[in-house]
Amino acid sequence: MTETPISRLSINADRLMSRLAALSEVGDTGDGGVCRLALTDADRDGRDLVVSWMRDLGLRVDIDGIGNVTGTWPADSTEDPVMTGSHIDTVRTGGRYDGNYGVLAGLEVIETVIESGIEIGRPLAVAFFTDEEGARFAPDMLGSLVYVGGLPLEVALDTVAIDGAILGDDLERIGYRGPLPCPARPPAAFVEVHVEQGPVLEAEGFTIGAVTGVQGILWRELTITGQSNHAGTTPMSMRHDAGFAAASLASTVRSIATEIGGAQVGTVGRIDLQPNLVNVVAAKATMTVDLRNTDAELLAEAERRLDAAIAELAHTEGVKITSRELARFAPVDFDPAVIDLVEHVAIARSCSVRRLPSGAGHDAQMLARVCPTAMVFVPSVGGISHNPAEHTSPTDLEAGANVLLDVMLNLATEHTT
Amino acid sequence: MTETPISRLSINADRLMSRLAALSEVGDTGDGGVCRLALTDADRDGRDLVVSWMRDLGLRVDIDGIGNVTGTWPADSTEDPVMTGSHIDTVRTGGRYDGNYGVLAGLEVIETVIESGIEIGRPLAVAFFTDEEGARFAPDMLGSLVYVGGLPLEVALDTVAIDGAILGDDLERIGYRGPLPCPARPPAAFVEVHVEQGPVLEAEGFTIGAVTGVQGILWRELTITGQSNHAGTTPMSMRHDAGFAAASLASTVRSIATEIGGAQVGTVGRIDLQPNLVNVVAAKATMTVDLRNTDAELLAEAERRLDAAIAELAHTEGVKITSRELARFAPVDFDPAVIDLVEHVAIARSCSVRRLPSGAGHDAQMLARVCPTAMVFVPSVGGISHNPAEHTSPTDLEAGANVLLDVMLNLATEHTT
Repeated sequence: MTETPISRLSINADRLMSRLAALSEVGDTGDGGVCRLALTDADRDGRDLVVSWMRDLGLRVDIDGIGNVTGTWPADSTEDPVMTGSHIDTVRTGGRYDGNYGVLAGLEVIETVIESGIEIGRPLAVAFFTDEEGARFAPDMLGSLVYVGGLPLEVALDTVAIDGAILGDDLERIGYRGPLPCPARPPAAFVEVHVEQGPVLEAEGFTIGAVTGVQGILWRELTITGQSNHAGTTPMSMRHDAGFAAASLASTVRSIATEIGGAQVGTVGRIDLQPNLVNVVAAKATMTVDLRNTDAELLAEAERRLDAAIAELAHTEGVKITSRELARFAPVDFDPAVIDLVEHVAIARSCSVRRLPSGAGHDAQMLARVCPTAMVFVPSVGGISHNPAEHTSPTDLEAGANVLLDVMLNLATEHTT
Repeated sequence: MTETPISRLSINADRLMSRLAALSEVGDTGDGGVCRLALTDADRDGRDLVVSWMRDLGLRVDIDGIGNVTGTWPADSTEDPVMTGSHIDTVRTGGRYDGNYGVLAGLEVIETVIESGIEIGRPLAVAFFTDEEGARFAPDMLGSLVYVGGLPLEVALDTVAIDGAILGDDLERIGYRGPLPCPARPPAAFVEVHVEQGPVLEAEGFTIGAVTGVQGILWRELTITGQSNHAGTTPMSMRHDAGFAAASLASTVRSIATEIGGAQVGTVGRIDLQPNLVNVVAAKATMTVDLRNTDAELLAEAERRLDAAIAELAHTEGVKITSRELARFAPVDFDPAVIDLVEHVAIARSCSVRRLPSGAGHDAQMLARVCPTAMVFVPSVGGISHNPAEHTSPTDLEAGANVLLDVMLNLATEHTT
């Protein structure tokens, strides 16, 4: 990355906000939030609205076998596009901007380019991927996973929803089972703009996050079997207290995260004791451990420390501890050149910018398997996400869309592949 | 206590075991356990059986206003008796010996004395007290509490059961609302034999426990309010993790107990997190703390340390912690002379004996308010209690009853008051 041209273009913030408002009315939960679970009628209505905007702009609308929708400009282009996009499905208590912002900012970028009449080297595309949230069909990021060939289409179509529906049936029902094959031909590059869903940018006063990658995740469920005892009559030295063991491991998870430092986080979000009574030493505890890091080596180190702590505690407390893996995802590193580009463009736009990893999963991490990819984050007020109170200021939404505009123009001009 | 005469008498172990077996058939749960919740039909049937045995022995049977039943020998005695006793109500999943053993060992002691024809200085009495377990009517030890004047009879009669019944009504219904006034005239002395309900005697190889007193109890419910956050996107330094705070306090409770040492115990038996999900930093935690010690000063010290840890943690973790007192009972010290007597008698009988506090509540702690009192413990296999698997070997049951015999004979002969 040598020179970073700044376009003289800027997106139309009113138009972006107006489309965001219109889309948020589909599945409006009445409390500032939105519910458009994947492949429900509300999701179909949201899709129809966004597709109508794509068609109004003259984009070529393509739908693939898993229901991912891409709008490409120029409509008759055959070259691999510079692509942006995100998702428009939401969790049950979703906010207005999670995913939707990335899709509509992409649409706004393309409309801005079309309006400007400038010539660009590559076509531009904006996509929304099916079932990013995973709130109705597991796994999350399902559409982009199928798009890049990480999951066979036939397997994905057989996925059963939490409400018993079959994914392929629902896709047919809402009219979004398209003809394009999966996996798709990769775009030239991919960049996604998204709300941070965490507190860092707001707390540290940055407008733009240049996302360096997505954390690796390790989820464990630990089951601790001790011995139920009378809390009054059992001396401390004779206890095999599953509750204490769980508490001790939860404290250890905190220590592991703070000692490793950097991007390492560790969370014990669930603890269930049995019999869970004030005067009975717990016989059994079930707990979860969530460890994440952008660095695969350090994440492995955190896991080793956890296992060592489990083994030691089982010995000293005289309890049995079994461990079940609930999830394991390797960290994803975004493309250094595209990360640099995001950073340079933001600085050129006089936006404060910091690099940071993503703690949440995004479609971009799937696209990173097949093309140069990065993400742009804008601040989430209070770090609140998956909640009707999710909020990002219009100024920040505008800034993020303008950064996306310049990143896409640079990628389209430089033929970055 | 100078000389400790050992009687040449011994109880009839077969007769004792036979009565224990017969009483355990009333409310037999079919799995080795017994269910005779206070003032139910099963409790009435158990009472009727024990009263029939008292009458067969020619004891004077007295029933007071709260349904406590006393069998006194000689029937025409007017002097204050040396009393033993316990309870025959059980928890829902009760064992055969908890309480019942103390009552039937007392009956066996009196029958042995009657059979022997020896002359004693004071009358002997055996009592069973109403609702010791508190499993149906709170508080536990209700009958003995009313007996010693710790709770007005009228208040006790209005107590509402967990099933909605009124205590006084049930007492009338089962025919055990008696004419004797409460509080009662105190006996000359009281000694209760009971299964330990803890693991110490068995683990250390002792047959007899000379119980020095009953632990004081402090129960707290702590409510910790933190902030719900995404486990992936929230840096460790920005968390207000109610789950971690609960875990940290549970570890602190263990440290407090082991650092104070001795009879100090501390238990966190209940932890409830919200929302209790693998990938969400807990917004709220509710937990209980159970602290017990026989020494009131050390128990107060444990409480001070807990409060200091709560205050410090609230500050460092940035969470709000509120505390609600669920129970507070001061420690009870038994009478040094009667404790000595139990120990001397056990040694004279060639039984291994150790002093220990009771971690559970017993009727004897109420009687200790009004007369010289102590207790005799026999081992509980595995420390198991309030469970059909509760067990004490017949040899130990026999040894405990013989110690009770000699203690009562000594108290009756020495006029210990």
